[in-house]
Amino acid sequence: MQGMPLLIKNVTVLTLDAAGTILENANVAIAGRTICGLGEAPPGFEPDEVIDGYNHLAVPGFFNAHCHSPMTFERGWAEDLPLERWFNERIWVAESALTSDDVYWGAALAACEMIRGGCVGFNDHYFYMDRVAEVAAEAGLKASLTWCQFGLGGDKEVGADLAGSLAFVDRWQGAADGRIRTVLGPHSPYVCPPAFLREVSALAREHNLPLHIHLAESPEQVQNSLAAHGLTPTAHLAACGVFDGPCIAAHALCLTPDDVALLAEHGVSVAHCPITYMKLAMGVNDLGPLLAAGVNVALGTDGPGSNNDMDMKAVVRTAALLQKYHTQNAEALAGDLPLRLATANGARAMGFGESGELAVGRAADLVLFDLDRPHLYPRHNLVANLVHAARGSDVTHVIVDGRLIYRDGDILTLDEAKIMAQADRRARRMVSQKLRIVREYKG
Amino acid sequence: MQGMPLLIKNVTVLTLDAAGTILENANVAIAGRTICGLGEAPPGFEPDEVIDGYNHLAVPGFFNAHCHSPMTFERGWAEDLPLERWFNERIWVAESALTSDDVYWGAALAACEMIRGGCVGFNDHYFYMDRVAEVAAEAGLKASLTWCQFGLGGDKEVGADLAGSLAFVDRWQGAADGRIRTVLGPHSPYVCPPAFLREVSALAREHNLPLHIHLAESPEQVQNSLAAHGLTPTAHLAACGVFDGPCIAAHALCLTPDDVALLAEHGVSVAHCPITYMKLAMGVNDLGPLLAAGVNVALGTDGPGSNNDMDMKAVVRTAALLQKYHTQNAEALAGDLPLRLATANGARAMGFGESGELAVGRAADLVLFDLDRPHLYPRHNLVANLVHAARGSDVTHVIVDGRLIYRDGDILTLDEAKIMAQADRRARRMVSQKLRIVREYKG
Repeated sequence: MQGMPLLIKNVTVLTLDAAGTILENANVAIAGRTICGLGEAPPGFEPDEVIDGYNHLAVPGFFNAHCHSPMTFERGWAEDLPLERWFNERIWVAESALTSDDVYWGAALAACEMIRGGCVGFNDHYFYMDRVAEVAAEAGLKASLTWCQFGLGGDKEVGADLAGSLAFVDRWQGAADGRIRTVLGPHSPYVCPPAFLREVSALAREHNLPLHIHLAESPEQVQNSLAAHGLTPTAHLAACGVFDGPCIAAHALCLTPDDVALLAEHGVSVAHCPITYMKLAMGVNDLGPLLAAGVNVALGTDGPGSNNDMDMKAVVRTAALLQKYHTQNAEALAGDLPLRLATANGARAMGFGESGELAVGRAADLVLFDLDRPHLYPRHNLVANLVHAARGSDVTHVIVDGRLIYRDGDILTLDEAKIMAQADRRARRMVSQKLRIVREYKG
Repeated sequence: MQGMPLLIKNVTVLTLDAAGTILENANVAIAGRTICGLGEAPPGFEPDEVIDGYNHLAVPGFFNAHCHSPMTFERGWAEDLPLERWFNERIWVAESALTSDDVYWGAALAACEMIRGGCVGFNDHYFYMDRVAEVAAEAGLKASLTWCQFGLGGDKEVGADLAGSLAFVDRWQGAADGRIRTVLGPHSPYVCPPAFLREVSALAREHNLPLHIHLAESPEQVQNSLAAHGLTPTAHLAACGVFDGPCIAAHALCLTPDDVALLAEHGVSVAHCPITYMKLAMGVNDLGPLLAAGVNVALGTDGPGSNNDMDMKAVVRTAALLQKYHTQNAEALAGDLPLRLATANGARAMGFGESGELAVGRAADLVLFDLDRPHLYPRHNLVANLVHAARGSDVTHVIVDGRLIYRDGDILTLDEAKIMAQADRRARRMVSQKLRIVREYKG
């Protein structure tokens, strides 16, 4: 379902074009799924809806390049724990009680958060992904989706084998007017055996599908990979053919200079999720060498079990702050760069290259921020205000593929009240189920 | 001006008492400036206003333990620069064009932000402080205020000498029904000569006033202090008598174990401002040894020239994330501890010990968060949701000293639209003035 012709009048536009052009008092005309006028509307343009853009800022919408959206159900469920205990004692145990319906409502809750925070697309890696695809279709969001694959056999009801993953691809590739894209999702080099990584990589090339995988999250993973394969996790994935086609590598925190060169050479996108790294005390990497090598670095929320929310605006600010802090260089990730990572780079990583810049002919994936808030005065530097002071809650309108899906506090595509009620009820049930499972396990 | 009898019905209450008690479906009765009923209203209590607390969370309001509120005028004015260049090339130059009226409107803008974000009190250290006091009185906020003192003579129109500071104390100590407290504010050991520090400390004791000072922000400051005085900045301040009475030391990032012991021994409060430390790439300290030694650690926004906002909720989250990251310990600053730093510890540091906990007989300084937001479901852990997912924009009501000053998006005490317009206009003027000054200086 595409939008009606839409005109945003008298708005300030942060185009995020190569020159960083900012237009004042501009009109943005949208027809179908495309921006058809910028500055002035085209002659004879007759909008069905006019949005008053006075004292608002139009910017390209955010693309959340790595998340596990149904994990909203685990928000607050695994607090103040290091990665290993976080996963083994809390996350995995709760997820053992997960149902397909839980995934639907958990992803729907995440979609509400993402839309309210100015996100137009997300890259999701989880289970029961048909249900996440349903949510993306209903919500009006763009999405790049994959079943998480362990490659170890195991619980068929949760993990997808490759045949199941390909069936998912058949059902959803290009669905929702092309807003939904599918990929293949081997979990990580530490969970997937090399033969499986080779098989899934070959299948991805055969079916022209990108891959989405976790990479090099800790020094221990690097040590283990060196011991098992004689290669860093990055070199190991390259050797298995994982990088022979488009790939999003989530995290990629522990990289040698050779690893960085490999990622650049293969055009791998890296999804950087700074709030998780801080919350789980994982450490972080300097993005400078990746960016200097030309690697496409994007930003993600990760799952709300670690973040604890789906707020890309918070990720943008935290990414800038953490890079400055980590590199002891206040000039790191300066200016509009964190915004570009969260918009054009995310869109490119997910295969939505038509997004990420406001220009005639580009996708109408944009959001409006209300500038009439005390924390957004004065206007010395609109970009700095957006990166460091604006909040997700300042977003007033979200347009995806030319369709208005959020307006002044109302999500126009989802029943938010019902979703919140369902999510609360189901998360409680999942946890009580989980407690039953733990009691049985402990005898 | 105190509030009318007020009843909040059916609210969830995070008391932040010693046991961390959470009350469900409770009533909070407020008479005068005090909580007179919690759980049930007292018999015969007749409120003038009833607030429906359904699906809301009542928590003690935040105390911003270190800020320079009029620096809202410099938001976005000094971006992506290290501390020295940030100060010398941008901040100090702009402030050279500052007027008394600018301070009023800048502080008023900050007050709007603080109120909207659930802040009930702030500790401010700047110039033309009569104007900040006017704002605090009008806004209905609690405040601890001081003129910044350099102790080097200099520009009389900006810096206050001690006589001027004491005159400010005479005018404002206990004003606004006791909501305004005054302190003395020598800028820092690196700006104030030892004789001045001794003089201001003696005056503080004589007049029973606390001190508010910057301390140990960088290793260079420690080296310089050792070279000049043979003492760390902390030991030097102790030797000058600065810690002989109540004192808030802002930052205190570079401390030896002996320094920590000195701060604990003298009951010094430390105001920790994590967003500034990240933004300016200053490094941070492990709060663990300070807390273990019993030092009263509080949280602050610092000035919006470095932060870039006055949002204490963002500071609470960032403090927790940065401690976990910096100490490589996901259990650091766990549970409700970051909230306690931002409430009771801040209140105690500023001399408002009646605040910081919701209990009968304590000050009615509290705020309501709307829990009916997608990012605040599910409810596995209300405290974690508040620390890591709730935003300042979720605050719906702010009550200070029993008086409702914010309700559902409306600040009841200030003309926010006028303040935003004035702040924008005046900040532009300040900057153009500054450009003139720089041109003259460069000849």
